[in-house]
Amino acid sequence: MKSLFSLSLIALLAVPVCAKPKSKAPAPVQVERWGMYEVAFTAPVPVGTNPFEVPFTATFYGADTLTVAGFYDGGDTWRVRFMPQQEGTWRYETASALSPLDQQQGNFQCIAPSADNHGPVQVDTTGLNFCYADGKQYYPIGTTSYDWMHASSAPEVTSADAGLTMQQQTLRSLSETGFTKIRSLLLPQNFNPNYPEPEQYPFERTADGKWDWTRLNPRYFDHVEECTRGLMQLGIEQDLILFHPYDGGRWGFHAMPIEAGQLLCRYVGARMSSFRNVWWSLANEYDLVKEQPKEAWDAWTDAIIAADPYRHLVSIHSYTAQYYSYWDPRYTHCSIQDQAPVEDFGRAAIVRNIYRKPIVFDEVLYEGDMNVRWGNLSGEEELFRMWMALIAGTYCTHSECYQFGDPSGFRNNFLAVGGKFHGTMWSRTKFLKQILDDMPMPMYLADSSWDPHTSACGPGYYMVYLGKEVMEQWRFDLPLRNGRTPAYPRIQEGDRFKVEIIDTWGMTITEYPTVFEAKKQDGYRMIDAQNRAVRLPERPYLLLRIKQVK
Amino acid sequence: MKSLFSLSLIALLAVPVCAKPKSKAPAPVQVERWGMYEVAFTAPVPVGTNPFEVPFTATFYGADTLTVAGFYDGGDTWRVRFMPQQEGTWRYETASALSPLDQQQGNFQCIAPSADNHGPVQVDTTGLNFCYADGKQYYPIGTTSYDWMHASSAPEVTSADAGLTMQQQTLRSLSETGFTKIRSLLLPQNFNPNYPEPEQYPFERTADGKWDWTRLNPRYFDHVEECTRGLMQLGIEQDLILFHPYDGGRWGFHAMPIEAGQLLCRYVGARMSSFRNVWWSLANEYDLVKEQPKEAWDAWTDAIIAADPYRHLVSIHSYTAQYYSYWDPRYTHCSIQDQAPVEDFGRAAIVRNIYRKPIVFDEVLYEGDMNVRWGNLSGEEELFRMWMALIAGTYCTHSECYQFGDPSGFRNNFLAVGGKFHGTMWSRTKFLKQILDDMPMPMYLADSSWDPHTSACGPGYYMVYLGKEVMEQWRFDLPLRNGRTPAYPRIQEGDRFKVEIIDTWGMTITEYPTVFEAKKQDGYRMIDAQNRAVRLPERPYLLLRIKQVK
Repeated sequence: MKSLFSLSLIALLAVPVCAKPKSKAPAPVQVERWGMYEVAFTAPVPVGTNPFEVPFTATFYGADTLTVAGFYDGGDTWRVRFMPQQEGTWRYETASALSPLDQQQGNFQCIAPSADNHGPVQVDTTGLNFCYADGKQYYPIGTTSYDWMHASSAPEVTSADAGLTMQQQTLRSLSETGFTKIRSLLLPQNFNPNYPEPEQYPFERTADGKWDWTRLNPRYFDHVEECTRGLMQLGIEQDLILFHPYDGGRWGFHAMPIEAGQLLCRYVGARMSSFRNVWWSLANEYDLVKEQPKEAWDAWTDAIIAADPYRHLVSIHSYTAQYYSYWDPRYTHCSIQDQAPVEDFGRAAIVRNIYRKPIVFDEVLYEGDMNVRWGNLSGEEELFRMWMALIAGTYCTHSECYQFGDPSGFRNNFLAVGGKFHGTMWSRTKFLKQILDDMPMPMYLADSSWDPHTSACGPGYYMVYLGKEVMEQWRFDLPLRNGRTPAYPRIQEGDRFKVEIIDTWGMTITEYPTVFEAKKQDGYRMIDAQNRAVRLPERPYLLLRIKQVK
Repeated sequence: MKSLFSLSLIALLAVPVCAKPKSKAPAPVQVERWGMYEVAFTAPVPVGTNPFEVPFTATFYGADTLTVAGFYDGGDTWRVRFMPQQEGTWRYETASALSPLDQQQGNFQCIAPSADNHGPVQVDTTGLNFCYADGKQYYPIGTTSYDWMHASSAPEVTSADAGLTMQQQTLRSLSETGFTKIRSLLLPQNFNPNYPEPEQYPFERTADGKWDWTRLNPRYFDHVEECTRGLMQLGIEQDLILFHPYDGGRWGFHAMPIEAGQLLCRYVGARMSSFRNVWWSLANEYDLVKEQPKEAWDAWTDAIIAADPYRHLVSIHSYTAQYYSYWDPRYTHCSIQDQAPVEDFGRAAIVRNIYRKPIVFDEVLYEGDMNVRWGNLSGEEELFRMWMALIAGTYCTHSECYQFGDPSGFRNNFLAVGGKFHGTMWSRTKFLKQILDDMPMPMYLADSSWDPHTSACGPGYYMVYLGKEVMEQWRFDLPLRNGRTPAYPRIQEGDRFKVEIIDTWGMTITEYPTVFEAKKQDGYRMIDAQNRAVRLPERPYLLLRIKQVK
């Protein structure tokens, strides 16, 4: 398999994230906090032994103590990976039933993280949003490309510039956006029965050509890891979908025995938990995997959590409006498929108010030109839905399915195989990300169920999203309440504010000259003391950013 | 206390619901199925004994075996009540630490229920709606009057015709409506600190004038039971709110010890579980009872369930948009306060899709003329909200708070004290009820998240609610899907339909002459073969009832 990283584009992005200690190295290996320490061991696999079932762990001693599973990496090679969460010296000792893997020791030095390394994403202290491990707020601006990691560069498929693999093209495309998350299938997708076979499969075959559900193919995972590393270098979270229903009987991975899924989770956990940008998504449309009972999802959820000593984010995703029991404490956030909550004001907050976990609407229909009702939104509509989620303190995931390829043959799109973007919404995401990153705190409706347009984002900092409405003016009018969590002083009479008019589609920010002065209208609202208004450009998709000034 | 039932209005409604067996009666007492069998015993309370803590049960043997708690009813009187759920002979035997209450035996005959007795309401087999125990569908058309059972007939309070108590007036008012449920506070409400003291209190006082949290006042409960019986005779469910925050420190019932609340639940359960029309609502706005920890609500929920051998409906109610964890299996349905889900299309179904339990929006703001933002909806808006819930397969509760009384003194309203209705929505509820009762099955969105206007209500039976939109015509256009549960054949090409135009506010039903013939428009919708439309009266709040014809 051709390396993803042979190209200069990718090479420029690459920074060392793993380091193999040489024996008797004079100085300890250095790994940055939330980087990956990796150590390899050599041990022949005894005849009659399944190397994927050999007990093999390493315990790391540093600021705390953590035991991680090692894994078999093919041939005589075994590896241990570890993501240090604190700086300082870490030493380890292995334990295994296989003596060359037992009682091996070593150490490394964990140093400060580099500038763009903020650690893994987790749920923040509000319980409703995300932050990196270093405390920096993280805003999911997601996209989806199911099979981008596995799509070949066959001419029928490609939407890549000459010389780029589809994976390289996808990474290059993403590098030009503000996306901070992508949903990717771990297992290959049979999105078209005539599509070329993938170069690698996750499982080995038995002599009779069937899948050997007890033996995995390490090279398959090398490739997934390369792709994940490529995302990490772009600051993009890998929302890795472990199982999916899009096999259509071609390979049968959707119908694997529960035990095979557990082995897969253990193996992926051992290999990939040490990637700081990994999230676990148990499935896409789990309920369309008719072959698997509820027990499978419970068993696999348990398996991936047990295999991940760092407790990366975990969720699961259903068919449209088939809301999962996300109140289950194993799921860190909600990964929802439903367009209804983001099609208009006043809806998304209901979902947040019920679950009280971070809400990501991970499918709300797609921008595209497909002849199906889920794949033909305009870019404007897709961006509108993302803002509809954001203004209510929730998040929304994009994808696009503009068809490319031979009109008489294969028709592919970014959602399926990645490659180049062909739509218009993606090019607004850097601007969007900047607006979010500039906020003192995440958005949440200041007066939920009463005012679906106005979010508070910290003391004296408001956002009012006007959506599709085209108004001549917006009368200065803010809620007295600023939400329940977190709490800080409400607007006081006499507080002064300036307003910026942000055209979310046109990507302009215009400061309005007036300084408004707050005055109580009644027990619920603050208006301007002179009842003044902001004159608006007659365009839709405007966002007003309102900041207190001295 | 003056009996509620001294008036002819109420007397006419009265049917025997309890029967006390005479000793050595020649023929067994007859009680209808889901009626109440009651037997009294005499036993002096031994000195130093708290009669509310005396173990006293009766086990009934019939089609099955059920043990119920007896209760102390004051003086030397003790009672056992039982609601037989099957016809046939039932015999019982008591057990008690108090010998006159121990090993008492008797029997009665359970006969068929009378015409208007359908048994207690329960969750139906869809898990999303309600039915009576006899299988008849039950639709909650709710109203709320917190203190109606306790409101005195003092001149400052009353909105009653001369000669009627407030309770009698409230029952008479309800008898003129289609309401099938009322939310009522078990404990008195301090809705105005100058309001007269209630005639009875639920607890006795100690010598120093404080509440004796270990001793209840049976006469208080007699009165609540009379009111509940009055509702039963009108076919109205008593959604009995066990605890509430509206005490304001006047009596301190909101701050009772957890054990007192448990005793209260045990006592209410022993007395009132045998009323077939009782539902348990743990609280109104439980989260505003700042004195009680989460443990109290859990303990009281457990207590009322343990005290109710029939497992009446149980829920709990929070402040606006503070959604409770209704996924807790102890709660049979969701009793929600939030107006947002019923203010526009596309919202209420989200709540149903998440919880997958029957959804009752038990406060969505009120019809009224109050100078607060929660009490000034028009009757049209209140009815609109009820239809907004219904069309999405959920339910919604009315109340009204038009102020009456001396403008310079007490100002009361139906929501607080009952009495007469002063609004306009209530008078549309009989018409509404008839529409619901005529449906073959409960409504649910046929194509949830895609078409928020169209509900399926059984094979070839659709409802399309147009809300506030005033349209010249409605092009015949139905979803191909008919929902996931329950499943029956979809519309086929060539199926023929007639449409009735229902003016939900004007209370007219107009049959439209055209017979429409279904023809596939695409993979999602059926239109008329000739693309015909229904011409509409130019009015809002129209409902189209569409039925297949031969």
